[in-house]
Amino acid sequence: MITVNARATTGPGEPFRPVTIERRDVGPRDVLIDIAYTGICHTDVHYASSPASRYPVVPGHEIAGTVVAVGGEVTRFAVGDQAGVGCMIGSCRDCDKCRAGLEQFCRQGYVRTYGSPGPDGVPTQGGYCEKIVVDEAFVLRIPPGLPLAEAAPLFCAGITMYSPLRHWKAGPGTRVGILGLGGLGHVGVRIAKALGAHTTVLDLAPGKREDGLRLGADEFYPTTQAATFKELDEAFDLLLSTVPASVDFNPFLDLLALDGTLVHLGAAPAPLSVSSASLRLNRRSIAGTRLGGIAETQEMIDFCARHRIGAEVEVIEAGGIDEAYNRVIAGDVRFRFVLDIETLA
Amino acid sequence: MITVNARATTGPGEPFRPVTIERRDVGPRDVLIDIAYTGICHTDVHYASSPASRYPVVPGHEIAGTVVAVGGEVTRFAVGDQAGVGCMIGSCRDCDKCRAGLEQFCRQGYVRTYGSPGPDGVPTQGGYCEKIVVDEAFVLRIPPGLPLAEAAPLFCAGITMYSPLRHWKAGPGTRVGILGLGGLGHVGVRIAKALGAHTTVLDLAPGKREDGLRLGADEFYPTTQAATFKELDEAFDLLLSTVPASVDFNPFLDLLALDGTLVHLGAAPAPLSVSSASLRLNRRSIAGTRLGGIAETQEMIDFCARHRIGAEVEVIEAGGIDEAYNRVIAGDVRFRFVLDIETLA
Repeated sequence: MITVNARATTGPGEPFRPVTIERRDVGPRDVLIDIAYTGICHTDVHYASSPASRYPVVPGHEIAGTVVAVGGEVTRFAVGDQAGVGCMIGSCRDCDKCRAGLEQFCRQGYVRTYGSPGPDGVPTQGGYCEKIVVDEAFVLRIPPGLPLAEAAPLFCAGITMYSPLRHWKAGPGTRVGILGLGGLGHVGVRIAKALGAHTTVLDLAPGKREDGLRLGADEFYPTTQAATFKELDEAFDLLLSTVPASVDFNPFLDLLALDGTLVHLGAAPAPLSVSSASLRLNRRSIAGTRLGGIAETQEMIDFCARHRIGAEVEVIEAGGIDEAYNRVIAGDVRFRFVLDIETLA
Repeated sequence: MITVNARATTGPGEPFRPVTIERRDVGPRDVLIDIAYTGICHTDVHYASSPASRYPVVPGHEIAGTVVAVGGEVTRFAVGDQAGVGCMIGSCRDCDKCRAGLEQFCRQGYVRTYGSPGPDGVPTQGGYCEKIVVDEAFVLRIPPGLPLAEAAPLFCAGITMYSPLRHWKAGPGTRVGILGLGGLGHVGVRIAKALGAHTTVLDLAPGKREDGLRLGADEFYPTTQAATFKELDEAFDLLLSTVPASVDFNPFLDLLALDGTLVHLGAAPAPLSVSSASLRLNRRSIAGTRLGGIAETQEMIDFCARHRIGAEVEVIEAGGIDEAYNRVIAGDVRFRFVLDIETLA
């Protein structure tokens, strides 16, 4: 076993405290990663505030670091490689979906980087820690040239945007709208632009216009103004919604052109209320998806490296996690907090 | 003007009575059709029971008959041809959607066969009458060999099923479910089978099993039994819903395989309640559409003739419209009432 420093919370709203956790010894197919940076995702904040979660928990599934050991059967990684880990560290690898490279839809459910019962029954623990041991099949190569702090959030936020953009064929000649310019949305803008799509940001906050355009968006519209919905009538082929499900999506559905799709990317406990009249009017669809498979995640990180796309991050120290969580809840982050793992020691 | 016998209702729930209505003289591009049969669609029943409708109304948009006169510029029809008319008798024919052959999504709104303000401001009147005059662009050729009584319902029910089956690529290797074995559903089963899809009927009434299988379905499942939803988990690529929007669709969403789509075909005043968790789990979509364009309607009727697909009809006389409406409301029709227009005289 390998003992490492970590930060954990023991219950909803409890502050993060230094702990040590155990990592398994490096097995034949395992990669041991010395974590440099871990992104702080909304999901971390939700998980750490839910009474239903498995405590104590070390969150973190946007992990970037350097390989420091590999098992004897590992073929894709060597010591010194830059490597990342996202939301999944395992799946059955045998069902039709896993075989199709869609581990995120594994029929057994994928093994989450934290909060899943691990193979030994002990809950998995995430990336707010110094090291992690992961089967090489779930480790991503980070191409040189991509700063690790900017790469880390791509393993959740990046793939969450990249996969639907690719699946619904964003590219030259398509008109993409990104609802919400936050951790997901800001990466989505960069990826959509790099794919060649006409990209528009829609956000509640008019003050995000400058950021949106700086990130590469062709247009920005505030959703607080009724004029936006008139002007953008049937303006989009694809709308990626990163906003909470409690938002009324129907005015956005009306912004879809013929055969347009609104993809809801947020986890939503409550059902969405969908106007069937709007769907029927223009053969529209509303869809959902989550993450992307491992092969597609590798494709995403390679794409981002080629196009010099990283997340815009604010690097924080280990003592700042609680404050960062409060700022995430308040929407006060541009656009992703990333934990500097060196400060955990 | 051409004076013809018709049946009209003067308000919600008022009985149908003999009236005469005027048809315009045959213009250069017009076709005059001697109507033989007109289907009785659910939409007729809704329209004739709504206080918001334009009264008096002659419903009917599932029309089949014979051409008895054509204008001087008509090129596609000659006297003696069998011809049909569906839900649309006009559109702007100039917007991008009309130009793409998608008149059902015309930006100006298409002209409905009944209940639209006509070019002269007078509401259009439908097919419960002896003759109709329609621009040839909105008239369909009925291939020989298809009995007119069985062809009539195809111009609404048939195209409503055919268009989504084609758009969402039903065919060999795809698994299609039809929710509700009624006027739409029974034609949908035949078309889906003819397209080569594995076709399953889901209906509330276990007693419809025999009909479903006789119509060609590979399988039938009653939706009243919980076992159905276990057995059919992830069993469909495409679900076509012909049932009211008040039905809870979420158990059906769960029956969709990876990348599956549930298409809601009913008009629904109330919003649909959609589980975003179910959408996200398998990259599922819920979509809507209505009708099909004129070119696609012609393609549909040619396809149906080639595959000897007609509606299963119960032919009624003019005096039986009120009773037929009551039976439609009670769900007591297998599967479409068709009005014998000869009985109007």
